[in-house]
Parts: sequence; C-alpha cells; structure tokens
Amino acid sequence: MSDAPARRIVTVILCGGAGTRLWPLSRQARPKQMLDLLGGGSMLELTAARVADTNLFAPPILVAGAGQADAIEAALPRAGCLILEPEAKNTAPAIALAALAVDADDILLVLPSDQLIGDAAGFREAARRALPFAAQGWIVTFGMKAERAETGYGYIERGAELGDGVHEAARFVEKPDVATAARYVAEGRHDWNGGIFMMRAGTCLDALEAHAPEIAAAARAAMEGARREGRRLLPEAAAFAASPSQSIDYAVMEKADKVALVPVAIGWSDVGSWEALHAVSPRDEAGNALAGDVLALGTRDCLIRSDGPLVAAIGVEDLVVIATADAVLIVPKAHSQRVREAVEALNQAGRGELL
Amino acid sequence: MSDAPARRIVTVILCGGAGTRLWPLSRQARPKQMLDLLGGGSMLELTAARVADTNLFAPPILVAGAGQADAIEAALPRAGCLILEPEAKNTAPAIALAALAVDADDILLVLPSDQLIGDAAGFREAARRALPFAAQGWIVTFGMKAERAETGYGYIERGAELGDGVHEAARFVEKPDVATAARYVAEGRHDWNGGIFMMRAGTCLDALEAHAPEIAAAARAAMEGARREGRRLLPEAAAFAASPSQSIDYAVMEKADKVALVPVAIGWSDVGSWEALHAVSPRDEAGNALAGDVLALGTRDCLIRSDGPLVAAIGVEDLVVIATADAVLIVPKAHSQRVREAVEALNQAGRGELL
Repeated sequence: MSDAPARRIVTVILCGGAGTRLWPLSRQARPKQMLDLLGGGSMLELTAARVADTNLFAPPILVAGAGQADAIEAALPRAGCLILEPEAKNTAPAIALAALAVDADDILLVLPSDQLIGDAAGFREAARRALPFAAQGWIVTFGMKAERAETGYGYIERGAELGDGVHEAARFVEKPDVATAARYVAEGRHDWNGGIFMMRAGTCLDALEAHAPEIAAAARAAMEGARREGRRLLPEAAAFAASPSQSIDYAVMEKADKVALVPVAIGWSDVGSWEALHAVSPRDEAGNALAGDVLALGTRDCLIRSDGPLVAAIGVEDLVVIATADAVLIVPKAHSQRVREAVEALNQAGRGELL
Repeated sequence: MSDAPARRIVTVILCGGAGTRLWPLSRQARPKQMLDLLGGGSMLELTAARVADTNLFAPPILVAGAGQADAIEAALPRAGCLILEPEAKNTAPAIALAALAVDADDILLVLPSDQLIGDAAGFREAARRALPFAAQGWIVTFGMKAERAETGYGYIERGAELGDGVHEAARFVEKPDVATAARYVAEGRHDWNGGIFMMRAGTCLDALEAHAPEIAAAARAAMEGARREGRRLLPEAAAFAASPSQSIDYAVMEKADKVALVPVAIGWSDVGSWEALHAVSPRDEAGNALAGDVLALGTRDCLIRSDGPLVAAIGVEDLVVIATADAVLIVPKAHSQRVREAVEALNQAGRGELL
C-alpha cells in the first residue's frame, strides 16, 4: 500500500471490564474477556491474536485491574506493557494512561478485550484504511453494521465521506428506543458503536485536555508518579483517584471536532448475553450450541454448556443452560438478559462466593 | 375392635427395587427407596414409620439386595430380620423368602419400600379391615383409587363385596391402553394395583406351590441352606438362582382363587416420575416445588431440586431441573418419563459412573 505506515500501530487492549451478563461462567475473579467461549482461546487471547501481525501492529499495551495481572500475563506472555489501573474508572481514564505511555505521534488502536470479530482480515483492512486519517488528526471510530434494532448499543450516524470508505461521524446516539433503533436499521445510515477507535496519542490527549481536563490531569499525574515492575506499569493511585469516571464516548467522541467513522461488516459481536453467544456459536442440525459434558435428546435451538457436571437436556427448546461446578443457570434464550436479576438476588442474599 | 388380632401383622418391606426414573438423584448405589424426596426421611424410612405401631405390627422383615444391606441397617436400626436376596428375581421369589421365614399362620403385609402414602391412618384402618379376610385364607390386595387414566399401572376390577368394604377381586388388567384406562376411571369399578398385599404366610406358600412351583421350590431350598449373620439372613445363592424371575401379580394374584380387594383412597403415589413427585410435593404460590440451593425468578409450576450446585432458574415454566454434584437433568415436566432415554444413552456411552 502506498500509505503503509512508517510507524506501526500501537494497539491498546482494554481489559478492565467486569460484567455479569455471562454469569455463572463469568465471575468477579474471571471476567468475560478471560472466558474461552468458542473453544479457540479466551476473548482476550483472540483479541490479541487479531493484532499479532507485526508488520502492522506493535506489541499491544494492556490496561487492566491489578486483580487480573497474573492471569493476563499468563495468557499473553508476549504482550507489551501492562498498565494496571489503581481502580476502575471507565474507558476514558484507561485510554489516557495508555496515550501517556507512548509518543504523541504513535497511532493508537483502542480495542475492548471482550468482543468477537469473525472477519479478522476485514478488521485489519479497515485498520489500514483508518490509519492515514488517524495520522492526520482524526479520531476514527469503527462503525459496526447494525444488524438488528438493538437498544443496548450506541449508534453513530454517518456524515459526508472523507474518502476510501471513511466518513465524518455526524452524530452519536446512546441507546435509542426500539422504534428509533428500528428506523436506524431500516435507513442504513447508522452503525453500532463497537468501542474500537484509532487516533494519534497526541490527538487523544489534546481532545481530553479540551473536553475532559480533569481526566487528562489525573492521568498525567498518575503516570508521572508511576512505578514500573518488569512489564507492569503502576500509575500512582492517589492521583488517579482524582479522575472522573467516564467513557471515552462521553468524554471525547461526542464532543470532539474531527471524528471519523469507518463502517465495517466484520462479524462483530460483544457477546453481551447468552443469546448472543448462541447466535455466534457453531450449531448442530437441531440448532443447538453444545459445549462440555452435555447430553441433548430431542432438544432444539439451545445453548448448553458445562464446565462441571454432566448436563442432560431432554425435550427442551430455546433454552440456555450453563453449568459450572457450583452454579447452574437455566433461562429461556430470549430472556437471557435477566441473568442480571439472578446476580443481583445472589448479591443481596450474601452469596458472594458465587459471584 | 372385636376382631383385633391375637397375632400381630408381620410387614414385609420389599427393598429390592432399582429404577432409573428418578435419575440423576437415584443411582444404582442409591435406589429410589433410599431417597429423601419430601424432606421427612427416605421413602424406606417413611414406609417403616407407617407400620411402627407395635400394637398392630411386628417389627418388619426387610428383603433387599446385599448391596443395600449397610444402608438399610443404618436407616432402620430397629427393624427385624433383613433377608438379603442373592440376586434380584422380582417380587414373587422375594415374598416367598419372607413367607418361609415366619410361621404359616403369621399374617404378612407386603409393602413396596418406594411409595408414598399421605393418609397413614387410612392405611392402617384398611389393614385392620383386611386382616380377618387374610386370616380366613384370602389374598387381600389394596386397591388404590384410580385418579387418572394412567397406562403404566395394573388395574384390579372390583367384584362382589365380601363385607366391611372388602370385595372379591374380579380381574387383574396389566397396563391398559389409554382408552381402556380412561373408561376404568369413568366407570369407577377399577382400582390401581399398588403392590400392597395381605395374606397368611401359609396361604402365600400354598398359592406359590399351586401356581409357581419352581419359585416355591427354589425359595424353600434357598432358605433351608440360608446362613444367619446377626440380623441378616442370607439365602443359599445357587438354590435361589434356580427360581424364575416373576412378579407376585403374575405368579399368583392373577391365578389364585381367593383374591380380595380393599379399595382405599389414602393419598398413594409410587412417585414413578419427576412429574409425579411435583404432584405430591408442597408447592409455593407459583406452583413451584423447590428443594435445596435453588433461586427461582419468574418461574412457574416447576420442580427444581439441587443436592449440589446452586440452581438459578429464570422465566421457565413446567420444567424439571434436578442437580447433583456430577449430573444435572433438565426436562419438561410432561416428558419426565423420558429420563430413561438419558440413562440409556449414558449407559451406551459407557458413563457408568453417572448411573
């Protein structure tokens, strides 16, 4: 390519997510990104593998909570710097720490660690298209093709085309109602905000200074006082504690001037529910996605997974069954968002050992 | 009562049943009669408690397989003789062994060990009514009120009343088709054969000699060669092996002359399926019968039981969920007979550790 980068892209993999939507498999001590949901490695490992091409990508910077440090290092022994957030502060402060750990001209590609992308080549191709725009000071978001009227996502409206399939981002809309979401899908001018961004580190820091100066200041102070322990970088806790807790979307994207959008259709899923996992899993002729020690008889369109006891399902349909050694979830696929109710009830009942 | 017995009734509790219909709770090493299904003790313990009135009943004789001896003695430390069948040969040989262990004039009351009877007083009252007929040489069966067109049971047609609510048994019908069963229920002249019988030991042996002489001979030889070990009586294995394997119904009841019937409505259930357990269990306002570590949210008319992991059920209806440490069953209540298919599949897959 004529516009091949002199400098490689520095990926920033955000590993701070907790999340309860895949309970009982996900736990506080084993968040979603550490789960191997499709048998090919954890979501974190798959995310790192997606940016393993050293011609295009430098070794990733990982941003995580201290509790996950050992697990992350074991999973990704060849990753780059591991920045350990003193506390979880949402994505804007986490990205600020990473931006401060590199040169201002480095191009950052920010990736959540808990997503699936079916078309890795398409993802890299989109990264190549985004790169010159990022180098010119644009914050480039990846717009995921809106496949259904999902109300749990943010949407980005496409503006004028800047060139090579890259558009201006006209507007961010967070979690629209179902009628609005349906209209977006019908009109085809809105993409899902998948939380994947590319920008110069300097662009990111400038935008934070402009639109979220308290975050920029806290991150800067925390990094000035940071300790290094081998691969690990430990920002100074008291300084970081002063940072507001905000998403990068809220802190920057919705306010900055030069925000661009690369619409992609790359088989993206954030696997935000067991139903979503069923949708992206290989399924047998009866529509079942089975994993682990499972016996399914006369069973259709189910997601059944065991990391513990044998699960014998007979004559059930459209059901999610997730078994671990200490907890079993049974919920209709269409209600799988209600897992949160179970987590909440267990929390209130003081059953922290199951969370 | 004017006809109170000089001699107490000797109950014979048949503990030989294996059964897979309550898998995964029931196992080869823990058959149904050893399960505590309603929280008040195992079915065997409840059966023994039902005949604990020493004014009416002598300490029971227990007939069981050797594998269950320790568990039975632990459960019933005050029971009488424990006859250990060298091998399972169905009910007729088991009853023959018991009949040979007592005097010919003793009145035997034969009880399966794996049934529930809600109205224990009604049961004892029926035993008192049956007693004079048994003493006069009748084989008296207890006819359970047929509550639905069940095709898995045997039915007994009532004949002429002999007196005091005791009828001649006109005919035995094994497992009728559903139309016939429905007609029986509508007509009200047929009762379920619950496998509870009362008769003189001598009457029993005479009937066996007449209608199943090979069983009588084998049992007699086995008891002549029996060893005694404390409470345990061990019939001689080679002699017992010569016995045909037959039910008492087939070997004797359907052929003998003086067979009587005491129709009763005493809340009887053989708990032949998980659905049947749901029907006899206490249920909450949503119709759920829950036992063990269970969290049920928006769940209706379910039977959910855990002897192992927490089970969280959300938004499900009419479902059976049975969890143990090593196996979890999920099946619609109406299909709970299909548990056998799972057991068969596991057997064929060489998963004997789960059976």
